[in-house]
Formats: sequence, C-alpha cells, structure tokens
Amino acid sequence: MAEAETPNRSPEIRKDKIHNRWVLFSPARSRRPSDFKAKSNPQPNNQTECPFCAGNEHECAPEIFRVPADSTNDWKIRVIQNLYPAVSRELDFQNPVSLVGDVAVSGFGFHDVVIESPVHSVNLSDLSPAQVGEVLLTCKKRIEQLRSCDSIKYVQVFKNHGASAGASMSHSHSQMIALPIVPPMVSARLDSMMEYYKQTGKCSLCDIQPNELLIAESAHFISLVPFAATFAFEIWIIPRDHSSHFHEIDSEKAVDLGGLLKLMFLKMSLQLNNPPFNLLIHTSPFQDDPSYAPSTHWFLQIAPHLSGVGGFEIATGCYINPVFPEDAAKILRDVRIS
Amino acid sequence: MAEAETPNRSPEIRKDKIHNRWVLFSPARSRRPSDFKAKSNPQPNNQTECPFCAGNEHECAPEIFRVPADSTNDWKIRVIQNLYPAVSRELDFQNPVSLVGDVAVSGFGFHDVVIESPVHSVNLSDLSPAQVGEVLLTCKKRIEQLRSCDSIKYVQVFKNHGASAGASMSHSHSQMIALPIVPPMVSARLDSMMEYYKQTGKCSLCDIQPNELLIAESAHFISLVPFAATFAFEIWIIPRDHSSHFHEIDSEKAVDLGGLLKLMFLKMSLQLNNPPFNLLIHTSPFQDDPSYAPSTHWFLQIAPHLSGVGGFEIATGCYINPVFPEDAAKILRDVRIS
Ligand SMILES: Nc1ncnc2c1ncn2[C@@H]1O[C@H](COP(=O)(O)OP(=O)(O)O[C@H]2O[C@H](CO)[C@@H](O)[C@H](O)[C@H]2O)[C@@H](O)[C@H]1O
Ligand SMILES: Nc1ncnc2c1ncn2[C@@H]1O[C@H](COP(=O)(O)OP(=O)(O)O[C@H]2O[C@H](CO)[C@@H](O)[C@H](O)[C@H]2O)[C@@H](O)[C@H]1O
Repeated sequence: MAEAETPNRSPEIRKDKIHNRWVLFSPARSRRPSDFKAKSNPQPNNQTECPFCAGNEHECAPEIFRVPADSTNDWKIRVIQNLYPAVSRELDFQNPVSLVGDVAVSGFGFHDVVIESPVHSVNLSDLSPAQVGEVLLTCKKRIEQLRSCDSIKYVQVFKNHGASAGASMSHSHSQMIALPIVPPMVSARLDSMMEYYKQTGKCSLCDIQPNELLIAESAHFISLVPFAATFAFEIWIIPRDHSSHFHEIDSEKAVDLGGLLKLMFLKMSLQLNNPPFNLLIHTSPFQDDPSYAPSTHWFLQIAPHLSGVGGFEIATGCYINPVFPEDAAKILRDVRIS
Repeated sequence: MAEAETPNRSPEIRKDKIHNRWVLFSPARSRRPSDFKAKSNPQPNNQTECPFCAGNEHECAPEIFRVPADSTNDWKIRVIQNLYPAVSRELDFQNPVSLVGDVAVSGFGFHDVVIESPVHSVNLSDLSPAQVGEVLLTCKKRIEQLRSCDSIKYVQVFKNHGASAGASMSHSHSQMIALPIVPPMVSARLDSMMEYYKQTGKCSLCDIQPNELLIAESAHFISLVPFAATFAFEIWIIPRDHSSHFHEIDSEKAVDLGGLLKLMFLKMSLQLNNPPFNLLIHTSPFQDDPSYAPSTHWFLQIAPHLSGVGGFEIATGCYINPVFPEDAAKILRDVRIS
C-alpha cells in the first residue's frame, strides 16, 4: 500500500449554528491526486460584444434605473431587467396553497442585473471604497422598490465572479432575484438563529467572539472566517450593530463596508490568485414576523470556489472543507496589501 | 433593446415535497449567452498509473473485501479504504453535545471506495444487469458491516462520474461515507415524508402517480423524472414495494435494478452525450425511530450536470432548472436503445 502521509491534523465535524448544518474538516483531502487533465479556468472571450458595456445599452433588457439618475452616456451603475429571467414580472402572483399533492405556482417574481461599472475590465476590487459603497446603495435602493410589491417575500442579491462560480458574463455585475416564497435555506437560518436567541437571550451574530478567526475590522463591520465554513477560505462580513435587513444600511456604513469588501477582494486575489467566487447578501424576509427581529442579523458571505463539489454534498447537504477556518483566517490576516 | 424571444412556456415554481424545497423552472434560461470561452470537459489522462486498476492493488489504501471473496488477480469488485478520507476510522467517537457555543466533534467515521471493475475503461453502463446488480449487492454488504458499528448513524453511497460532477479518479468507482450524525438533508427528507404520511396516511413515494413523468419500468422498480427535479434530466428510480432501507434489497431485485440503471445510463449517454453525473442512494438512518418506517422509502437519484450552479443556489437552496420534467421524461422515454 502507498504510504498514507500523516495529516497534520485529524478530521473534525463542526456545526454551522447559523444554518444548522454540519461541515466535515479534513486537511488530508487536499492532497488527493486527480487523473483528469487539469480543469482549465475558462477565460473571458474579449472578442464578443458585451451588452453590459457603455454604448451597448440598446442590447440589454429594459433599464430600471441608473446612477447618477440624470446621467446619459456617463452612467456609473445601471440596474436592468435580466433578459433570460428565472422568474417573470409579467405573471400573476398565486399564493401557494398547501396541497398534499404536487404543488406548483406561477413563476412570478423579479430578476434584475446590476451592472457595476460601464467599463468591461473593471472589477469591484478596482473601485474605490466610496464606489463599492455606491454599488451597495444601489442594491439597497432596488430592494426598497421591490419591497413595495406585497407579494414579494424575499430578495436574494448574489454575484458570480468567474466561470466556475457560475458566471456566464464576465463584465462585473450582480443579480437580484425577488421571490414570492421564502427560500428553504433562509427559513432554516432564521429558525436556527431564533433557537440560539431562545436559549441565550442573545443574537448569535452579535454574540460572535472572532478571536483567531478574525481577518480585519472597520468602524462598523468585522470580517472573519466562520467557525464551520462551508468553503475553503470562506469569508463573512458582519455589521457590528444588530440589524435584520441589509436595506437598513446608510451611506456612511455603505462606504465603510465598501472599503472592507475591497480589502477582502484584494487579499483573496493576492493569496488565492483571483479565484472564482460568489458574493451573497444574507438578509431577512420583508414581511417578517416581528418576533424574529431580535435574533436575525444580516451579513455578507464570500464563497471562493477552489474545488468543486461532488455527490456527497448534493445528497447530504454536508460539505467537506480541507482547510481549517483558523488556518485560513491566519493566512488571510497576514496578506499585506501594499 | 434586443428582442426577448418569447419562451415557449412561462416560468413555474414547484415544490419538491420529498425534500420540502422549491425549484424554479424557466426554459428561457437555457438560451442565455456566455462570453466565457466554452468550458472544456476535462478528459481522463490515460498516461497516469491508476491505483484502482488490477495489478496496482499495492498502491491503494487497505482492502476491506473483494468479490468474489476468494479471488486473487481475477477480482471483479474491490471495497477499499479511501486513502484521503473525509472522516477517520481511527478517531474516537464523541457524541455531539448540544452546546449553545461552537460545536465540534472528532471526525470519526468510515470513508470507503468501491472499485466497480478491474478494467480502467469499463463504465457501469458496459456491465451486464447482473454485474451492475453485483455492485449494488457489494454496497449492501458493506452497509451491513457498517451497521454493526453502534456510533454510525447514516451511510451515504455516491458516485461521481466525470470531472465536473466532482470525480478526481476516472476509473469507475463509487464511495461510501459512514457518519456519526444524520446529515441535514436526510433529516429534512425524513421529516417531509413523515408530514405527508400524517396528512394522507400514505407513503409519498408509494403514492406517486408517474403518468407523463414516467421513463421506464421493470418488475420491481420504476424510473421517472421527479415533478420538481433539481437538475435538468434528473432521474429517480423507486422500488415499487415499500422499503425504508436500501440494504433490504435482495439478489433478484438487485439484478432487476441493475438492468433499469443500465438502461438509464445508456439513454442519458445517447441523448445527453455521456454527461457528468452523480448517482446517489437515498436511504434511511440505521437507528431509525420506528415511527418513521411507514413514511420512509429509499430511492436512487441520478443527477446529470449539464450546467453549473451559481450564487443563487448556494445562498437560497433553491435551484433553477431550465427543463420542465414532463419534457425531459418524454425525451428520455423516446430514446431507443438498439
Ligand atoms: N442583453 C442582456 N440583457 C439583460 N440581461 C442579460 C443579457 N445578456 C445576458 N443577460 C443575463 O445576465 C446574467 C449574467 O449572470 P451571471 O453571469 O452572474 O450568471 P447566470 O445568471 O448566467 O448563471 C449562473 O447563476 C445562476 C443563479 O445562481 C445559476 O442558476 C447558473 O447555473 C449559473 O451559471 C444572466 O442571468 C443572463 O440571463
Ligand atoms: N491510492 C488510493 N487508494 C485509495 N483511495 C484513493 C487512492 N487514490 C485516490 N483515492 C481516493 O479515491 C477517491 C476518488 O473519488 P472521486 O473521484 O469520486 O471524487 P473525490 O472524492 O476526489 O471528490 C469529489 O467528491 C467529494 C465528495 O462529494 C467532494 O467533496 C469533492 O469536491 C469532489 O471533487 C478520492 O476520494 C481519493 O481520496
């Protein structure tokens, strides 16, 4: 038998108490071989005309608004409809009746794209803290519009960066899907945070002691690797003050968050070589039962995709992470940005 | 604005009542463009020495058993330890105490590999129904061994086929991870099936009327596309008779299932061009509360990976499927195997 190198550390199973799920940590996994030719990281094809670039606005689905509002060719950010939407704003809303048989409702909802820069090659990390803050405030503004639609229960804001994180368009953008249902993972998170609150009288995110998991801090936010991170080098950015909804953010906090977010992108890019990643805003449903307010706390998640997932994760919802969070946090903390 | 071609069908939101989660169906999504150069489907590198091939047994982690038991060089199937395990059989079992703070237990468990053929280039679909049945009976035998370990609560059997379904080794194999916890998705499935049983007095899988979702039938099993399929062209194979645990399968049923599984692989291969996929066995925990017996029913899931996932799925647990299940079922039903 081939000599099994002794792993530096034994596997551990940790509970993600925010999502109420288990994660397996096993450094040995990172040393397994592969007999597939290396996966190429698909690169953007810069020859194709990009509808998100300034000058090509007519190739996009209708615009919802732009920033600045009165700009013409010199816009900074545009919020547009997704031309290939997962849900449709043109359908009637149907309340899902709880039937025993097969339940289907019309795919009513809103699916928008936020174009984060007029220039094709500019990434969020190239923008200034104030400009990243502007993108966050644009999301806030659109969420507040969607909130006025009674049948929308939850808005998911997400960014796919890099083909293996799902991106089909390379021009920097985020997406928002507004849904007439509360997604299962969101309900699980709310219930799990409520449970913690019932047991301790405290909000589970207010109560976090980052210690060796801390990466960096700003005036209003902390960034850390969560204790039971699903992905290697996963990062959470948590507001210091208790707040249930992302759209409660103000301009000052948005700029502060913009700076911390930019720092995290630069650290990831330097240490992990511009990895594909998802940026996710975890917030609360609109028509929140007020009893949830003291236990729910919004946060951002950055999920780098350094390896794929396989059947085990799909079947069980348990992830396997080869990097212990305290090790990832130390590495990211120590990356110096010149 | 570019003309939005009218989708043949409006989006729909369906409830997967087995897992209690929502899936968004949107045929329009399948037409969205990508400006990333086409993802290459990594091909196996046949130059590398494969430890799973006959003759290279010494390069593998220790064997648990082989089939036939008394074979030497002429083995058909081998069950071995995974050399880079996600959980370790050498650790002590710790019962996860329900603490309010951070919960971590030792990563105790078993992580095995089932080598399905001695020959590198042979896939499950190349085997005869009886030989596929033999692989299933091998999994059954190993599960029964693991069951004798009191601290193991659940065994997940899974197969990764193709690099983008997670496979790192191209030689045909499956894996088994035996865990001291019940994974979150398994608990959700048990609870959701129990709820259906409470409401109707029936098992939700016994009660399925496949109709236009049917693909094929055998003496003891039916194969269909589930009503709220997570993945495009996803297939479930369900035993006709009520049974909670996969390891209750007998030899006759295993051969029958082997034939139906082979047929599904051939149909997928012809229609979808040998796609990457996961094969998953969804069974029940060992130390089952007996009250769950009438509502839990094991089944197989085949999840083809025709497109990746992005931030929306990771954040919400809701999947977006561009192919309506009735359309996928019709296409798969109509594939003729000569
Ligand atoms: N001219 C135009 N006008 C307006 N909008 C346009 C447009 N041309 C393209 N679009 C839209 O722009 C979006 C670009 O989004 P991304 O690159 O972040 O990933 P995408 O949504 O394709 O899928 C990824 O994210 C989703 C959700 O997580 C996963 O389901 C999927 O598997 C993954 O690849 C697409 O949704 C597309 O429909
Ligand atoms: N000489 C040897 N002896 C014994 N065992 C050997 C060996 N050489 C390699 N192995 C093991 O063989 C297994 C092959 O498994 P797969 O190809 O199905 O996917 P893998 O487990 O690598 O990861 C995929 O599946 C897991 C679980 O779903 C995901 O976490 C991951 O992201 C995805 O790539 C590996 O687990 C490896 O450790």
